[in-house]
Amino acid sequence: MSLKFVGEASVRFASPPSILTAAAVVGPKEGEGPLRDYFDVVSQDVKFGKETWEQAESEMVRQAIELAVKKAGLTTQDIQYILAGDLLNQNSGSVYGVRSFGRPFFGLFGACSAMGESMCLGAMLLDGGFGEYVIAAASSHFCGAEKTFRFPLELGTQRAPTASWTVTGDGAVVLAAKGTGPYIKTATIGAVVDMGVKDANNMGAAMAPAAADVILKHFRDLDLTPDYYDVIATGDLGEVGSNLLVKLIQQDGYDIKARHVDCGLLIFDQQAQDVHAGGSGCGCSAATFAGYFYAKLKKGEIKRMLFVPTGALHSVVTVQQGESIPAIAHAVGIAGE
Amino acid sequence: MSLKFVGEASVRFASPPSILTAAAVVGPKEGEGPLRDYFDVVSQDVKFGKETWEQAESEMVRQAIELAVKKAGLTTQDIQYILAGDLLNQNSGSVYGVRSFGRPFFGLFGACSAMGESMCLGAMLLDGGFGEYVIAAASSHFCGAEKTFRFPLELGTQRAPTASWTVTGDGAVVLAAKGTGPYIKTATIGAVVDMGVKDANNMGAAMAPAAADVILKHFRDLDLTPDYYDVIATGDLGEVGSNLLVKLIQQDGYDIKARHVDCGLLIFDQQAQDVHAGGSGCGCSAATFAGYFYAKLKKGEIKRMLFVPTGALHSVVTVQQGESIPAIAHAVGIAGE
Repeated sequence: MSLKFVGEASVRFASPPSILTAAAVVGPKEGEGPLRDYFDVVSQDVKFGKETWEQAESEMVRQAIELAVKKAGLTTQDIQYILAGDLLNQNSGSVYGVRSFGRPFFGLFGACSAMGESMCLGAMLLDGGFGEYVIAAASSHFCGAEKTFRFPLELGTQRAPTASWTVTGDGAVVLAAKGTGPYIKTATIGAVVDMGVKDANNMGAAMAPAAADVILKHFRDLDLTPDYYDVIATGDLGEVGSNLLVKLIQQDGYDIKARHVDCGLLIFDQQAQDVHAGGSGCGCSAATFAGYFYAKLKKGEIKRMLFVPTGALHSVVTVQQGESIPAIAHAVGIAGE
Repeated sequence: MSLKFVGEASVRFASPPSILTAAAVVGPKEGEGPLRDYFDVVSQDVKFGKETWEQAESEMVRQAIELAVKKAGLTTQDIQYILAGDLLNQNSGSVYGVRSFGRPFFGLFGACSAMGESMCLGAMLLDGGFGEYVIAAASSHFCGAEKTFRFPLELGTQRAPTASWTVTGDGAVVLAAKGTGPYIKTATIGAVVDMGVKDANNMGAAMAPAAADVILKHFRDLDLTPDYYDVIATGDLGEVGSNLLVKLIQQDGYDIKARHVDCGLLIFDQQAQDVHAGGSGCGCSAATFAGYFYAKLKKGEIKRMLFVPTGALHSVVTVQQGESIPAIAHAVGIAGE
């Protein structure tokens, strides 16, 4: 057996899986942002024609998966596994979203790192010889997330300056054992990192150390430097967390500043859209990748990128009990050819 | 590439991973049940020395993983990936339980099917060449689960006759690419199955169709009959769900009655311990496997077993919104040699 595990936490794929297609389905606010032209579906209805926010999220999941599969010229019956995650209690967005497909399902929880987790695991299943096609997806919904983690919207609670805005969106990709580029070449699997941050309104600060940890492991394990990548895109650190990330990585002698972008800072116009620290949520990195970055990779405008979705793993209960906020991030090394 | 995916939803491993060691950590009530002598740790303190039930669950997770690793003569640094899941909102049991290990972590959500999900994925990662050692684990805590899904214990609410009793326990196994038996030979990955059951106090009925679906796919995909296995062990269908499962499978021409047992009916003495329909929770199948079945497989008293953890994928919110309860089950084909 040839071990594909490298260094402390990384994987180098023997037959890099293709990211065959991608689909991004988002809500109205995301459709008013700078990336509007990159999304496949922009709904003008934040409930996506359903009765509740939770059902709306599941409908986004269903639509994005169906669209990604259709773009590949496949049906869901051709898919060996669906891997998906979200933020709702008991993964309701994903569970109810995939219910109609009847395909083997792995539910994942990595909070907003879910798209990284699903792409890493999906690529591993394909490179491991366990199938031809896999769906990797992740979703979030602003209204459902506020209800789950913070205050019901009806209260009209003022948001903290460090707070981010949960993206209403789903990104789904079809990964294929054989296919055209872009390809997933490498992955670094994150560990739970907890530096003691307790402010649930400052998730960027809680997540930055986890992002720094996985990016540094990626460089060391695979003997790479930041300039290897055209873009290093974190998930939803926002402005606060992004500045912290660059500094944390500088302390270890690497400078990612020129290459680093954050999906949370790309998806909204921070000033005009009043989103404070930026976008967040599983759907933030998932829809930004499946819409914007996938198009850039396909066109060759980005040749190599490190995609690093970041997640804060707290719950309301653990925050109320005075626990600090553990975080995780996974790094996916992608190349056009 | 040799495809290891067989039929509709099954996997046949090329180099079946070893279940190298197992550890089961449980609470006081489980320690008074019929399997008491099979558990590694029976705590007399339902809080495991911690302040809250959620922290208690994480402490069980930590102890069980640490013990399984120690039994293997390894340290957690030797483990490539930890895969774990639980029932708490945002997987708090697992997240805080693995926090101190600093190893690559995949958080899973499959409700009470989590031990099946973690063992299937863990075995796939090893057989795919991505590592030498993996931890697969799952946990639940009676008090935390009641608080999350039903009523605070302080209310003293009367329990329905069809209700089950969430096991306070964690089961963890070390899977190894090379090692002694028992081995994971095959797996069938479950789909989300929803037959419209809406009673959150009758999860056995909600889960039985998912268990029947995955068991039937397992037989068909791998061309097996029930007598191939000494034991077919479902997770936590309880009495109501077990009877339903046997009938559902009979409708398709297979009779599993003589081979079928349910972890939820093994772990407690239904009459003496007043648990109504039986035990449930991720920890039910996980601790019963890691304690009882693992010992029987090791001694050769069971030569081949199909382990089928079952999960009900609802949340409080989806139940309150009138949604039915989707369910899932994964089947793990295990043989001593």
